[in-house]
Amino acid sequence: MARRLSDIAAELGLDLRGEDMDVAGVNTLEAAGPDEISFLANPKYVPQLASTRAGAVICSADFAGEVKRALVSDNPYLDFGRCVSLFAKAQGTLSGVHPMACIDPAARVAEGCTVYPFAYIGPRAVVGEGTVLFPGCYVGEDCSIGRGCILYPNAVLMAGTVIGDECILHAGVVLGADGFGFVPTSFGIQKIPQIGTVQIGSDVEIGANTTIDRAVLGVTSVGDSTKIDNLVQIGHNVQMGGQCLIISQVGISGSTKVGNNVTMAGQAGIAGHLSIGDGVTLGPKAGVAKDIPAGQTMGGTPAVDKGTYMRTLSVMPKLPDMYKRLQRLEKELAELKNGAEK
Amino acid sequence: MARRLSDIAAELGLDLRGEDMDVAGVNTLEAAGPDEISFLANPKYVPQLASTRAGAVICSADFAGEVKRALVSDNPYLDFGRCVSLFAKAQGTLSGVHPMACIDPAARVAEGCTVYPFAYIGPRAVVGEGTVLFPGCYVGEDCSIGRGCILYPNAVLMAGTVIGDECILHAGVVLGADGFGFVPTSFGIQKIPQIGTVQIGSDVEIGANTTIDRAVLGVTSVGDSTKIDNLVQIGHNVQMGGQCLIISQVGISGSTKVGNNVTMAGQAGIAGHLSIGDGVTLGPKAGVAKDIPAGQTMGGTPAVDKGTYMRTLSVMPKLPDMYKRLQRLEKELAELKNGAEK
Amino acid sequence: MARRLSDIAAELGLDLRGEDMDVAGVNTLEAAGPDEISFLANPKYVPQLASTRAGAVICSADFAGEVKRALVSDNPYLDFGRCVSLFAKAQGTLSGVHPMACIDPAARVAEGCTVYPFAYIGPRAVVGEGTVLFPGCYVGEDCSIGRGCILYPNAVLMAGTVIGDECILHAGVVLGADGFGFVPTSFGIQKIPQIGTVQIGSDVEIGANTTIDRAVLGVTSVGDSTKIDNLVQIGHNVQMGGQCLIISQVGISGSTKVGNNVTMAGQAGIAGHLSIGDGVTLGPKAGVAKDIPAGQTMGGTPAVDKGTYMRTLSVMPKLPDMYKRLQRLEKELAELKNGAEK
Repeated sequence: MARRLSDIAAELGLDLRGEDMDVAGVNTLEAAGPDEISFLANPKYVPQLASTRAGAVICSADFAGEVKRALVSDNPYLDFGRCVSLFAKAQGTLSGVHPMACIDPAARVAEGCTVYPFAYIGPRAVVGEGTVLFPGCYVGEDCSIGRGCILYPNAVLMAGTVIGDECILHAGVVLGADGFGFVPTSFGIQKIPQIGTVQIGSDVEIGANTTIDRAVLGVTSVGDSTKIDNLVQIGHNVQMGGQCLIISQVGISGSTKVGNNVTMAGQAGIAGHLSIGDGVTLGPKAGVAKDIPAGQTMGGTPAVDKGTYMRTLSVMPKLPDMYKRLQRLEKELAELKNGAEK
Repeated sequence: MARRLSDIAAELGLDLRGEDMDVAGVNTLEAAGPDEISFLANPKYVPQLASTRAGAVICSADFAGEVKRALVSDNPYLDFGRCVSLFAKAQGTLSGVHPMACIDPAARVAEGCTVYPFAYIGPRAVVGEGTVLFPGCYVGEDCSIGRGCILYPNAVLMAGTVIGDECILHAGVVLGADGFGFVPTSFGIQKIPQIGTVQIGSDVEIGANTTIDRAVLGVTSVGDSTKIDNLVQIGHNVQMGGQCLIISQVGISGSTKVGNNVTMAGQAGIAGHLSIGDGVTLGPKAGVAKDIPAGQTMGGTPAVDKGTYMRTLSVMPKLPDMYKRLQRLEKELAELKNGAEK
Repeated sequence: MARRLSDIAAELGLDLRGEDMDVAGVNTLEAAGPDEISFLANPKYVPQLASTRAGAVICSADFAGEVKRALVSDNPYLDFGRCVSLFAKAQGTLSGVHPMACIDPAARVAEGCTVYPFAYIGPRAVVGEGTVLFPGCYVGEDCSIGRGCILYPNAVLMAGTVIGDECILHAGVVLGADGFGFVPTSFGIQKIPQIGTVQIGSDVEIGANTTIDRAVLGVTSVGDSTKIDNLVQIGHNVQMGGQCLIISQVGISGSTKVGNNVTMAGQAGIAGHLSIGDGVTLGPKAGVAKDIPAGQTMGGTPAVDKGTYMRTLSVMPKLPDMYKRLQRLEKELAELKNGAEK
């Protein structure tokens, strides 16, 4: 299984400094052994160069002299990722359609697909070439799944959901459950039927147990190459752009529009019917109740620009003290005025 | 498939202003075509009346003159919902019990139920007439499910869970997992076995991947017509009333009592052993650590009345400036006193 | 089914005060009937002693005289838990491997395991003695599960996940989905393959729909006897100690180290690459962006020591008033200086 370091360097297009060797794998500076490659991307870990046992390190030219062997890189984290790819292997070992899967006769499953036991594909659903459905996946009627997708165990696509090519849906993802649409009336809460769908672009990854609701009318959409972490909630009729990074436990309420290249940190929450511009970054736990123009970096509840938020955070713990000082000032000023009046 | 507009008007009991037409569907003012019905409920969208291509619009009498055809309504959003119902169709196309389902011989499944492949129904479980279980559903022993319910894929009812009639459980819902009950002791953390159950009323809807834990003793309960969104957590022994609206990612800790007609916005969190009165509304991300009397609208952490919360929010970003001004005041006052003493 | 109270007292090693009786079950002071045992652990419920119909009460010696029959305990909540255990019964009634389960020929399932229909066990996976897999569970290739574990419905272990003995995984748990590792580049967002695994100790309980991601390299780990509630997110390469209590909807970002005996309350969020010391307690909704030394109790965002946090919370609603008073002070002081200058 071992590969030669020189072959890896060639494959990644990186300059090798030092002798060739056999490579067993990739690891952190702290844990790597003499037959493993590691990397230095974060300056915080420079001190570990002195003690690492790694056989080779992917790093910038500046540090190439400090390690046994270097693969010199302009972007060590990216090249580390590319290097890891050489050692990664797909999960699952099955190929073809397992007899314990259940595929409706009116579904179309392309050649080269893998369908595990206990996966279900409904009428008129279409599954593209090379796509893999793990056990417990549900693909409702009229769904369309592109080529080269992976649906990990128990991923659910309700009727009419469309996803592009090369998407990864982690275990327990639910796409196309009904949006939360109700009208309170004097005779009880009435449900607004949700007759829209969900449309996901290509090269999208969606984390475990994340939920994206179907639109009330029209579509809830996610653009190409957007990456969504675990346990995220995306409400009905949200329109999200491409190349976004949405971290775990974020919630986005119905009908909000999110631009391209938007980053939302963990546990942020966005109200409904808003517009979040291209390139916006939201800090962790941010609470957004207003539109945000393109390019802003925001934090806090209510979300404000990052500078203001960081300053507010630093003052927060002083609040009790501020209150006391305010009271003292009032007292002193009153005394002073009293004195002045006399 | 097309229906006549006049038939729809008659069915909804609405007054039609304008000529009859064939109706293909329902859509937003922005997206509707000339063969579709749209609606105006939110004043924010009045300007779209001028440009909409919709063939007909459900709106109040005030706006009936501004559109090609109007269905005049006293509650346009509600009547829009009723109109959508005419075009909605149930998900799933199967009927009867599929041979790849697994039903314990000691379970009782009523006539007219649909049980998809890979659904499991345990001993002594009872499933009412017309109820549909999608693939991957688990119904534990001694569960009871009423008439006309829908359990979407991978919904899980642990042993003894009871749900009423006409309930909708979205994909990945988990009812009746053990509550989080542990006692730290000098010899380790001890588990308190959770021997209670979960009881859900009728006409309840529960969102995808939401979890409601079984009681330690007695029941965790949810009242009739309460609607719960995705990824909500409801702890053991919570007693929730009817007609509540619980938005996504809310967490309610153990033994808290929630009244009727309570609304909780997204990501709110409620501590345990509290009492939340009838008709309370909680804002997004609210953090509740005290009882709330009936009828209050609250926001923030700690949750306070809405007026105070909104004023606090508006002051928050001024905090760094306030701190500077406080320091300056102290300095100026000290100088003044110094001067006065001289 | 009834047991004698004297037998229960003997089994728990508690002193019985009062006559013997038949015991039908365990219940709260409020709900218990004359054939049930209840308990008094929280002083808040002392007033209920006067009205309870419970046949016997587990309580400290101080209250033994106030109830019909007492089981005298130094730790009533713990002994209540032990008493409940006597009446608890395991969920599920199946034993052996069901013919509708799917087990790869290269998997090793020990004697005495129960495998429900629609559970899947992949190649080279190992399942220890007495472990139970409910319907819809997925155990990927090369996974290892210890003895006496319970995997409730639809629990998912992606390839290579290791769990110890006597663990409980509630429904919908996902262990070993890919961590959220991406590099934004000028030519698009690149995925860093996640080739590490997840390792869970023994006696660990993990709540419904909780997700724990696989490491990018090495392992994401959870120590012995840690208990995790529902809908929690644990990122890649987190290293969590033993005997921790992690309440619902907490999120822990990648590479953070959490010590032993740490408690995190609901909806807390921890940034990545941090170190949280042994015995730390985090309040609900806490937002942690810095290392926390051992033994601290922290709350708020940014998390500060509990005393400061509680004082800050109490001042928060006064903020609008403080702002007004600050403005008034400035005005008054200006007038005073004006006067002084004249």
